[in-house]
Parts: sequence; structure tokens; C-alpha cells
Amino acid sequence: MTLNFSKCQSVLITGASRGLGLQMVKQLVSNAERPKKIIATARKPEEAQDLQQLAKSHPDIHIVPLDVVSDASIDAAVKEVSSIVGPAGLNCLINNAGILIDTDLNTVTRDAMTKTFESNTVAPLFVTKAFLPLLKTAAAAGQGSGMGVHRSAVVNISSLLGSIQLNWGEAANFKTYAYRVSKSGLNMVTRCLAAAVELEGILCVALHPGWVRTDMGGPEAPLSPEESVSSVLSVISGLTDKDHGEFLSYVGEKLPW
Amino acid sequence: MTLNFSKCQSVLITGASRGLGLQMVKQLVSNAERPKKIIATARKPEEAQDLQQLAKSHPDIHIVPLDVVSDASIDAAVKEVSSIVGPAGLNCLINNAGILIDTDLNTVTRDAMTKTFESNTVAPLFVTKAFLPLLKTAAAAGQGSGMGVHRSAVVNISSLLGSIQLNWGEAANFKTYAYRVSKSGLNMVTRCLAAAVELEGILCVALHPGWVRTDMGGPEAPLSPEESVSSVLSVISGLTDKDHGEFLSYVGEKLPW
Ligand SMILES: NC(=O)c1ccc[n+]([C@@H]2O[C@H](COP(=O)([O-])OP(=O)(O)OC[C@H]3O[C@@H](n4cnc5c(N)ncnc54)[C@H](OP(=O)(O)O)[C@@H]3O)[C@@H](O)[C@H]2O)c1
Ligand SMILES: NC(=O)c1ccc[n+]([C@@H]2O[C@H](COP(=O)([O-])OP(=O)(O)OC[C@H]3O[C@@H](n4cnc5c(N)ncnc54)[C@H](OP(=O)(O)O)[C@@H]3O)[C@@H](O)[C@H]2O)c1
Repeated sequence: MTLNFSKCQSVLITGASRGLGLQMVKQLVSNAERPKKIIATARKPEEAQDLQQLAKSHPDIHIVPLDVVSDASIDAAVKEVSSIVGPAGLNCLINNAGILIDTDLNTVTRDAMTKTFESNTVAPLFVTKAFLPLLKTAAAAGQGSGMGVHRSAVVNISSLLGSIQLNWGEAANFKTYAYRVSKSGLNMVTRCLAAAVELEGILCVALHPGWVRTDMGGPEAPLSPEESVSSVLSVISGLTDKDHGEFLSYVGEKLPW
Repeated sequence: MTLNFSKCQSVLITGASRGLGLQMVKQLVSNAERPKKIIATARKPEEAQDLQQLAKSHPDIHIVPLDVVSDASIDAAVKEVSSIVGPAGLNCLINNAGILIDTDLNTVTRDAMTKTFESNTVAPLFVTKAFLPLLKTAAAAGQGSGMGVHRSAVVNISSLLGSIQLNWGEAANFKTYAYRVSKSGLNMVTRCLAAAVELEGILCVALHPGWVRTDMGGPEAPLSPEESVSSVLSVISGLTDKDHGEFLSYVGEKLPW
């Protein structure tokens, strides 16, 4: 795979302690054309052993504490990231942190609905809001025209399970109500943000990483984290104006809302 | 307008104290082919003066207290409705209650997001869950084949602002982030429910009532409550299998998610 992050100076990933977030950090750092600054955030960095290990041998990785459901944590992270990226701003924000609580019509609770919504829908909105000044700076400073990671991009890691259209027939057998609702809400958040930041030149997309063998995806999933993230990063590095405001799969195909 | 609710014995409406909910009760009760039992629910019936007034001259109207965000209130309402409808069950549940807190990118708060989500997305799910036994009874007992209000239907009053697809270009100038996200979530809830209750013969749709001059819609809206509700009830009375799981406008057109 050839990734071109040569004009993207900085990438921030939420939920980089394990799963897809950790894999993104791994693949970014091992790439020849990598961003100069890879900001790997985790709510409890001290417990993220694999990430700590990786960072030891890669000074490009900056580990920053970030619990996406906490405003205080977000504020502190923005300050720290601000001094890491400096006047170049932040080129790419990947809202990857997420939770899945198994719920169907019988087991779903108000609490599961709200908690999942706070983590998967509300948090990406407020994380993005908080990083907007740094994203705007990068969009204005970025080399080249058009939109993309050479200027500034927000990537919300959504899910095919968040497609309302596709939640029908056999596919509807994956119940996970709280999760589905949170991801359709995240898709709406993505579209709201995309419309709001377009004039600033900030690209905004929702991206389905495929069904992947992580703690969340489980052992039955068809894709390895390596396969998923290699595709995901290739899509992210190639984002252009035509992708702005869309819902894409890990191979870059447009998905229906 | 000709409404055919002759084979629909009972309709329950949430948020019937004012606005569209109250107007639904008014038009249902003044119709020749009306449901025998019109259950108008309100979170504070004692304060719903117009509804109380209407019920005085119409014994078909049953006023039942129902605060859709409270499980205790839902449980009490199910008991009361159960004895009102008897062994025929409940033919039509209209989840109409909803709130709108004005929010754009600058003014949106986590609290506004969560509160709107609880009222507009989570509440219709739990109200529907609680009434499912009565809806199933009606679906099984209903005369005629196919799906529709002659058997059993759940109508979630959604909004065009909940369409992720249509939130673009000029339309995106209506910001109301918290509301938009809650209604896209409600659309996903509708689709989840539709898939779950299909085998029981319960029809489930999301319905956009148009932009209407109520407290929520404001004085600039193009439609009067009379115009909106007359269309809405005509669409509801004519629902068939082909509408199941869809997102419809007040004139019965399919809307994109
Ligand atoms: N795996 C799949 O098949 C699949 C499919 C579609 C979409 N996705 C999406 O892909 C993203 C990553 O999923 P995954 O498979 O890697 O899941 P995972 O293995 O369960 O990892 C979830 C990550 O999110 C972090 N996280 C959760 N809540 C957080 C919070 N409040 N603050 C900061 N970090 C938080 C976790 O941190 P801790 O270690 O501290 O818990 C962890 O790093 C999620 O958004 C998920 O919905 C996954
Ligand atoms: N008007 C429009 O242009 C428009 C457009 C698209 C969709 N809609 C949707 O249509 C529905 C009705 O809107 P409307 O215009 O009639 O709004 P409205 O005039 O503001 O009335 C809202 C109704 O919902 C009730 N309600 C709110 N929270 C409740 C709760 N927790 N429990 C019980 N009842 C509750 C209110 O009761 P109280 O009197 O006790 O507050 C009131 O009866 C809503 O779902 C709305 O989102 C409206």
C-alpha cells in the first residue's frame, strides 16, 4: 500500500489504546511518507501498554491523555496538542473512540441508549468543536488547493450499522439498537459539521472501517485490523473535495445514509 | 378530506396538550369515520385546557397522563389504556411528543444534545416497547389482511430536518443540531422497530408533518396545524404494507434518510 501523508504534518487519533486506533498509529509510524507528528490519544495512557511500547521506539508519536466524554479532558488535550503542532495547526483529526453495548428490543435500556450516544455521537462533535481552531489554522496554512489531509480533515469513524437505509432484511438481524442509533446520529453530526466548516476548507467525512477482529468486532469478523486500517488510511490520505460530507466505506465507496 | 378510520378502533397520541397532537385529536373526533376510542395523552393533563375543553363535549376522547421520558408514567399509562381498549388492543400509536432546543455549532451543549435525544429518540422507543403487547393484540385481532391501522401501526412523528441526505446546501442553514441528530436517531429507531415487529403484522413508519405554525414551528411556517394534520391523518389512515419501515412526508411521499 502506498500512503501519501507527506503533505500532512499532523494526525490526531482518539481511542488509540487498542483496536483500530492503535493499529492506525502503528501503520502511520511505519510508513515512509508519514506525518511528522502522530498524536495518539487515550483516556488512560498509563494503561495503554502496547501504545507506550510503540512510542518508545518512535519519537514521532506523541501520547496525549484524552477522555472524549469529558470537557475538562478535551480542554487539557487541546492545550497540549496546540504546543505539539505549533503554528502549522492540526491537519487531520480521526474521531475513532467508540463503545458498543449489546442491545436488542428486549435488552435495550434508556441508560445504554444515552451512554452510547454520549460516547459515539456527542463526543465526536465536542472533540471536533474544541480542535476547530487548530484545524482552521492548518486548512489556511496547508500547501496546495482543494480539500484533503494536506490542509485539514475530520474523519468520524462510523459504521455500516449506522446506515438507516441498509438496516433492513437480513442486515437488520444485527440488532445493537443503541449502537445503530448512535452511529446514525454520528452521521448526522458529520453532515452538520461538513456544512458548517466547508467555507474554512475543512473536509469532513464519516467512514466505515469494515467489520474487524478487535475487542469490539469479535473473532468472527472477516477483516484483520491490519487489512482494515491499511484501507482506511489509504482512503483518508486520498480524500478530496468530492468526498466532503459523505459516508464512505473502507474501500472508499459511497454508502447510503 | 375523507379519512377512513372506520376499521381502526383506537388511536393513542402522545403530546396532545397543544400543537399537532391537539389538532390530531380535534380532527379525529370531528370525523364521521372516527376511531371509537381516541386516547389523548399529555404529561400535565390538568394544564391542557384546550384538550380538557374538547373532551367535555366528546366522550370518545380519553385523556390519560403520559410523560414520555418517565418509565413510571409509561407503566401507569399502559395500565389505564389497557382497560380503556380492552381485548381489542391498541390499533394506532402516534409518537408525536417532542422538543426543539435551538442549537448551532456555537450554542450547542452536551446537555441540549442529551435532553433532546431522550425526548425525541429514546422516549418513542420505550413508549412503543411498553405498548407492544396491546399493539400485538390489535394486529392479531384486526379485520382484513395486510398491514395498516385496521390492524396495528406505530407512527413516529419525525422531521425533514432529520434527513441526513437532505441536510446540505441551503437546507443546512437550519442548524438545530440537537434536534436534527435526535430525529435521524428516531428514524433509525423506526427502522429497527419496523424490522423487529414485522412478523407480528405491526406497521411502523416515520412521518414528517411539514413545517407548521405551532409553538415549535413558529409563525413563519407555511402550513397551519389544520392543513398539516388533515394530510397527516389521511396518510396514516391509508398506510399499507408498502409504507412499512419508510420515512414519509405529510403528503405520503417517500423521503430519503
Ligand atoms: N471493529 C469493528 O468491526 C468496527 C466496525 C465498524 C465500526 N467500528 C468503529 O471503529 C472504532 C474503533 O473500534 P474498535 O473496533 O477499535 O473498538 P475497540 O477495540 O473496542 O476499541 C475502542 C477504543 O475506543 C476507546 N474509547 C472508548 N471510549 C472512550 C472515551 N470515552 N475516551 C477515549 N477513548 C475511548 C477505547 O479506549 P479504552 O482502551 O480506554 O477502553 C479503545 O481505544 C469505533 O468507533 C467503532 O464503533 C468498529
Ligand atoms: N411544527 C413543526 O413545524 C414540525 C415540523 C417537523 C416535525 N415536527 C414534530 O411534530 C411533533 C409535534 O410538534 P409540535 O409542532 O406540535 O410541537 P409543540 O407545539 O411544541 O408541542 C409539543 C408537544 O409535545 C409535548 N411533549 C414534549 N415533551 C413531552 C414529554 N416528555 N412527555 C409528554 N409530552 C411531551 C408537549 O407537551 P407540553 O404541553 O406538556 O409541553 C406538547 O404537547 C414533534 O415531534 C415535532 O418534532 C413539528
